Amino acid sequence: MKLYSMPSSGNSYKVRLLMALLGRECQIVDVEDSSVALAEARAEGRLPFGKAPVLELDDGRLLPESNAILMWLGEGSALVPCDAFTRAEMLAWMFWEQNQHEGVVAVRGALQFYPARRALATPERLAELLERGHALLQIMEDRLARHDWLVGESLTLADLTLYAYTHTAGSRGGFEMQRFPGVNRWLGRIAALPGYKGLDG
Amino acid sequence: MKLYSMPSSGNSYKVRLLMALLGRECQIVDVEDSSVALAEARAEGRLPFGKAPVLELDDGRLLPESNAILMWLGEGSALVPCDAFTRAEMLAWMFWEQNQHEGVVAVRGALQFYPARRALATPERLAELLERGHALLQIMEDRLARHDWLVGESLTLADLTLYAYTHTAGSRGGFEMQRFPGVNRWLGRIAALPGYKGLDG
Repeated sequence: MKLYSMPSSGNSYKVRLLMALLGRECQIVDVEDSSVALAEARAEGRLPFGKAPVLELDDGRLLPESNAILMWLGEGSALVPCDAFTRAEMLAWMFWEQNQHEGVVAVRGALQFYPARRALATPERLAELLERGHALLQIMEDRLARHDWLVGESLTLADLTLYAYTHTAGSRGGFEMQRFPGVNRWLGRIAALPGYKGLDG
Repeated sequence: MKLYSMPSSGNSYKVRLLMALLGRECQIVDVEDSSVALAEARAEGRLPFGKAPVLELDDGRLLPESNAILMWLGEGSALVPCDAFTRAEMLAWMFWEQNQHEGVVAVRGALQFYPARRALATPERLAELLERGHALLQIMEDRLARHDWLVGESLTLADLTLYAYTHTAGSRGGFEMQRFPGVNRWLGRIAALPGYKGLDG
């Protein structure tokens, strides 16, 4: 099994984090933003939707999209609830992450982190993303102020999915994380999991 | 079962289309954009992430996110592949739809369709979305030029998910659909399914 992974990206990190928690091994192919390796992987048809991460199975089949890879790797583990409705709630957070959270929380981080994107980081855009991001983080806070995990009573893929860009929302994104004490406790709970690996780990 | 549904929105339409194809009944509560009904449903806590669609079960449990609702309703039907890898491929298209396709193809349509959003439809924004949307539709064309369905050899939830905003990409979004003959044949294939209902049906 081979993972085409962008080292600095939360979407790729999610998959590396799940593999670490499950104790699974996998060859990692680094395809950093704007790198030759990324262009090569694209040219060789290894990235079906043009982006990392992509999981390549030993028989050559390719699976794109971070959250679909999490579902494929996590199926059968304790991280995917057996109860059908709880599983659907988990997927709801995972789709929300890709549709709402990532496009605001991750994007505000990326605009400031990647030199090539800084030209797009106008004060108006950063201010708009700050306000929208705080509203999205509040949705997580509303849940995590009263519960340890996003879904049910134990860790699921939804937590890993949302951890990826939330744990750098302060450092990269400039969001005011002290507003969200429940989110901060949850971030600490995930970082303390046996087998945990950080973004650079 | 009750569906909070925004009549003009592709995300809500997906769920209504799946119910029609499965022959399932459900009370529909219309919560159109900017309506009093939408504000009321929000104020009553019926929309966990603030948006439609949301499915309310008979016991009051709430499930947001169109694609999570599709998974909940479709589980056990022929529209969710039994094979784990094919199911993961289906989810990959569904996450891609929420992360890439919707934010470009649907958004360009919405900017021109909803009067309240027309102020945001600058020529620069529309031109950028046109170019990005054509690139995304080409990804679908690459698959559909050679296959009848997005995943495997039969209709899955991935097709319904992507049908919702693709079938109005020309009429609302102004995309040049004649460039994508495989996509057009696939649109026709879905519209001919037994039980099919249109967006206004």
